[in-house]
Amino acid sequence: MFKVTIHPDNKTIEVLEGETIFAACCRAGILIQSACGGVGTCTKCVVQIKEKAPPASAAGVRNLSCAEIEQGFRLSCQIKVHQDLVVDIPPGSRFYGEQILTVGGCAVIMPDLDPNVRQYHVHLPEPHIEDQASDFDRLARAIVEEEPRLEAGLEQLRELADVLRESDFKVTATVCGRRLIKTEVGNTRGTIYGLAYDIGTTTCVGYLIDLTTGKELALASRSNPQAAYGHDVLARGDHADKGPEQRRELQELIVGCMQDIAEECCRKAHVSPEECYEVTFGGNTIMTHLVFGMNPRHITVSPFTPIWSRASKVPALEIGLKLSRWARVYALPCVGGYIGGDITSGIIAADLEKREDLTLFVDVGTNGEIILGNKDRLIGCAAPAGPAFEGAKISCGLRAMSGAVDKVSFNPETEDLELHTIGNHAPRGVCGTGLIDAVATFLEVGMIDPSGRVLEPEEAKEKLPPKLAARILPNDNGSDILLASKERTLEKRRDLVLTQRDIRELQLAKGAIRAGVDMALKVYGVSGDQLKKVLIAGGFGNYINPAAALAIGLFPPDVTQDQLEFIGNSAAVGAKKCLVSRAERVRIERLARSVEYIELSGRPDFADVFMTAMLFPGAESL
Amino acid sequence: MFKVTIHPDNKTIEVLEGETIFAACCRAGILIQSACGGVGTCTKCVVQIKEKAPPASAAGVRNLSCAEIEQGFRLSCQIKVHQDLVVDIPPGSRFYGEQILTVGGCAVIMPDLDPNVRQYHVHLPEPHIEDQASDFDRLARAIVEEEPRLEAGLEQLRELADVLRESDFKVTATVCGRRLIKTEVGNTRGTIYGLAYDIGTTTCVGYLIDLTTGKELALASRSNPQAAYGHDVLARGDHADKGPEQRRELQELIVGCMQDIAEECCRKAHVSPEECYEVTFGGNTIMTHLVFGMNPRHITVSPFTPIWSRASKVPALEIGLKLSRWARVYALPCVGGYIGGDITSGIIAADLEKREDLTLFVDVGTNGEIILGNKDRLIGCAAPAGPAFEGAKISCGLRAMSGAVDKVSFNPETEDLELHTIGNHAPRGVCGTGLIDAVATFLEVGMIDPSGRVLEPEEAKEKLPPKLAARILPNDNGSDILLASKERTLEKRRDLVLTQRDIRELQLAKGAIRAGVDMALKVYGVSGDQLKKVLIAGGFGNYINPAAALAIGLFPPDVTQDQLEFIGNSAAVGAKKCLVSRAERVRIERLARSVEYIELSGRPDFADVFMTAMLFPGAESL
Repeated sequence: MFKVTIHPDNKTIEVLEGETIFAACCRAGILIQSACGGVGTCTKCVVQIKEKAPPASAAGVRNLSCAEIEQGFRLSCQIKVHQDLVVDIPPGSRFYGEQILTVGGCAVIMPDLDPNVRQYHVHLPEPHIEDQASDFDRLARAIVEEEPRLEAGLEQLRELADVLRESDFKVTATVCGRRLIKTEVGNTRGTIYGLAYDIGTTTCVGYLIDLTTGKELALASRSNPQAAYGHDVLARGDHADKGPEQRRELQELIVGCMQDIAEECCRKAHVSPEECYEVTFGGNTIMTHLVFGMNPRHITVSPFTPIWSRASKVPALEIGLKLSRWARVYALPCVGGYIGGDITSGIIAADLEKREDLTLFVDVGTNGEIILGNKDRLIGCAAPAGPAFEGAKISCGLRAMSGAVDKVSFNPETEDLELHTIGNHAPRGVCGTGLIDAVATFLEVGMIDPSGRVLEPEEAKEKLPPKLAARILPNDNGSDILLASKERTLEKRRDLVLTQRDIRELQLAKGAIRAGVDMALKVYGVSGDQLKKVLIAGGFGNYINPAAALAIGLFPPDVTQDQLEFIGNSAAVGAKKCLVSRAERVRIERLARSVEYIELSGRPDFADVFMTAMLFPGAESL
Repeated sequence: MFKVTIHPDNKTIEVLEGETIFAACCRAGILIQSACGGVGTCTKCVVQIKEKAPPASAAGVRNLSCAEIEQGFRLSCQIKVHQDLVVDIPPGSRFYGEQILTVGGCAVIMPDLDPNVRQYHVHLPEPHIEDQASDFDRLARAIVEEEPRLEAGLEQLRELADVLRESDFKVTATVCGRRLIKTEVGNTRGTIYGLAYDIGTTTCVGYLIDLTTGKELALASRSNPQAAYGHDVLARGDHADKGPEQRRELQELIVGCMQDIAEECCRKAHVSPEECYEVTFGGNTIMTHLVFGMNPRHITVSPFTPIWSRASKVPALEIGLKLSRWARVYALPCVGGYIGGDITSGIIAADLEKREDLTLFVDVGTNGEIILGNKDRLIGCAAPAGPAFEGAKISCGLRAMSGAVDKVSFNPETEDLELHTIGNHAPRGVCGTGLIDAVATFLEVGMIDPSGRVLEPEEAKEKLPPKLAARILPNDNGSDILLASKERTLEKRRDLVLTQRDIRELQLAKGAIRAGVDMALKVYGVSGDQLKKVLIAGGFGNYINPAAALAIGLFPPDVTQDQLEFIGNSAAVGAKKCLVSRAERVRIERLARSVEYIELSGRPDFADVFMTAMLFPGAESL
């Protein structure tokens, strides 16, 4: 065991011989950025080893400059500990989580209160020689309109006789689904609560709801601690595939996060976690598998089959969630491997399958999920956008955190670019919305052409105002575009640039979503102008500048800005609906079966559509 | 801790200071007769303390003679141990169990094989880009005709993906109810078994059945070890009412007995207990409560309400039964507190609710359960016969064990009584069938009159042949009838006599059943001669001499011997039917709800009917 002291935390952690710094920090709850899940390729997890830095290995210094290597910068996922160390985690490498979107953007009408867990205060007629019904039948009879098929476990039955007689047959029965879970003396109504979760790959949000009134009492959120194993679901899937121990680990991380959220909500609302009887959550199919400790391996490889996609109802204790011992977890159903419970949740949040008018629903994220249709027919597909929108695979990519460039515009007066960062700090990277904004601006001013090519420096001097031209720097693989020079960045380590490759990554990402949209329209046989609304969902989607989204061609040219509507975190809204209403569960389960899933990779015309979709508007004329 | 050595076992057991000999023996698995449950009233549990017998207390020597007290005889339930002891348990005090009736007396047509646990060998189409159904849906689809609503737990889902792919999608799925419990590589069909039990107050019988073929493979039986707490259900109920620990103890005893039976059956049939997936049992309502650890207290006092009377389906592990970890227990439903799952089992065994013809079903035991009707209407009532038919409360009463007098007849040549005993041993007591036979004979020869009064010795000398008259002995409470003098009995301790009080106990017992029959006929509005059949069920019923039963007036005078049919242990037959057929479960559950229960104690006319029913035939003329 060695001691590793982490700065600026000034926290000393114990590390096993040979464990990586990355893994040890993760174990100690100190989260470090990673998009590749610790295999040394994303180079997000750079740390500085203050003394006795181990010799530079090819893997340990990937993408670092000689100066950085000399200063002891290393990839924390590649450095195994063989001695005591002092390590500094630069702000850009630390994983703080991001702006968390907790409130839906569209007005949602909540369903009538009819939760799966309910309480009945009843006064039963006492047994009599002419009415010898069993204690249980007597109780069931009293709530028969609700409970024609009431059931009970032995534990509940064992205590029933005493409770009835102690209370002179005036009791409160708590029922979950068809199951009697508790009978209490007197009137104890009003003590049942539930939690609705949006379990995102990046972020988890939970809402505490009073199931007697339907009122939302508290919310809390956490970054998904599985992020230590990679920011995207594929990296998590790879880790899960290593074995049952790894699956258990991933499950414990996410369930621990749900537990923390539950406890924070309960503290805020002065509610005991033991009074929480129901949990609902919407997550993508892989996250749903991981919550249940299932291996999502076969979702990640063709032909992309999940183990299970229906709605799940399991005891909370079975996944390790400690609330009421009778609490149950309801996982919103998935349509398939890449249209998960977060999307079915969004569909019922937006009442998509009830709408008369043709509506396009797009959840913009690592996977772009696309649902198109109305009450008559819904089709869906998933476009593997990759993590570019979330800052990964972009050389200076950052999640939406303070110091991330989130807006880029052209100032005609200075004839130069203007940056805006989250929190107005010195810039340290570019987040997804900033990237879209930047590229839209580059296109507008002509720094890149509609094919996505960055002008060469010589070409730029000819075509662009001098300040813009000065931002085009030569590089081996096409030109870079300078956003901020080293000394103006937060960390002053290197220039903040977007490379030709970064632009290509964005093209891949937007091209995937656009191709999905195009394919969906094609399969449905409609054009963009026939859409009444284009709903953009997802935490990330909510921050996109609509004009920029259209400028980079995220949607077909016949879609206009007034069709766009940002509906925010719809994944949570559906989970809340299912928490307060059994009818919504029936609805979402039927819905999940009815959405026609279009597997894009199975279509011969997809490659063509995708190629075209990667281009920016105006490329038709090239 | 003291040491108590038990003879003739020559077994030394450790006893806590103050524990009774009865309780200590019970704990050590040495069972002693008891009808009162160890409260010192039945005086069945006499033992002989060989050295240092504690001083005689009123409770400890109840009903014993001075000579017996001097020889160290004591009631084992009243003697607390405060020193090392040597104790002899006389054969008459030992509880061996009784002749166990394991084969139904009537021809039973078993239903079509359609058990709740089933195996399917299926070859699934492999996932394909155009068929991305989840692994589970793929499996469910293959058995969809059977399993439109198939469900699975996390454990089954977690292993599913690997099993499907290891086996090239050729698997065997084991399904219990709607739940997938196991998926195995290849064809493993033919490895599912179940157990059907008749859980009697006195005796438990279990049958091992191959659920792939419906074939019965083995049976085993045990005395119900709860007998140590009293032979009748009321004594057990009293013990259970003492607290949760006592309920747990009674539950462990009966479930342990079920476990022993299961293991014996499995050994005999070379089957692993882990391959047993289903258990069904029929038991009276109190026994059913005790199997589930519920307090039957309120069944035993007016208005006699059970906690639960529906069919129960619980995991076998939840009651402590260790078979397959997925095994489930199905308890046959009860009609009410005194018409239990043993009787609903009997009804479907005898197809009572399908019969066109009016049929009377009587289960003769401690409680006489009476069902009357046909396919149009069934009514039921329970008559508290008390334990006289099982030898309890009868001074020389014995269960049906070797040495018990089971037949008594008058030999016209010797002009004297003739006894027959089980096993042709020297007599040591009288069992229920012997009691009925004896009283029928006493009536025939005039030793008792139709009111049940034993002639006085003087009167007997006038009216009876000398040998019979010599058997009438004076006593404080009416006369005794000598069956065998002391020296001719097995134990040579005292004369074997039936007392006036014994005759009265029999009158109470037969009167209760007869009153139940009369009330049922009255409520239904029919007479005895309108009955097509009178079915006599139950282990005890099977041994009754039908002529004797009619002679003592167990049935109305318009019932004739050719109406009587003995159907044996019908309680087991229904449990077997429910084990092999889900349809039979639906049937018995519907049936249990449809039987109209007549509470005799709630009827103002019952006392009158009961008074008359206690008299013997011919009493009308008195």
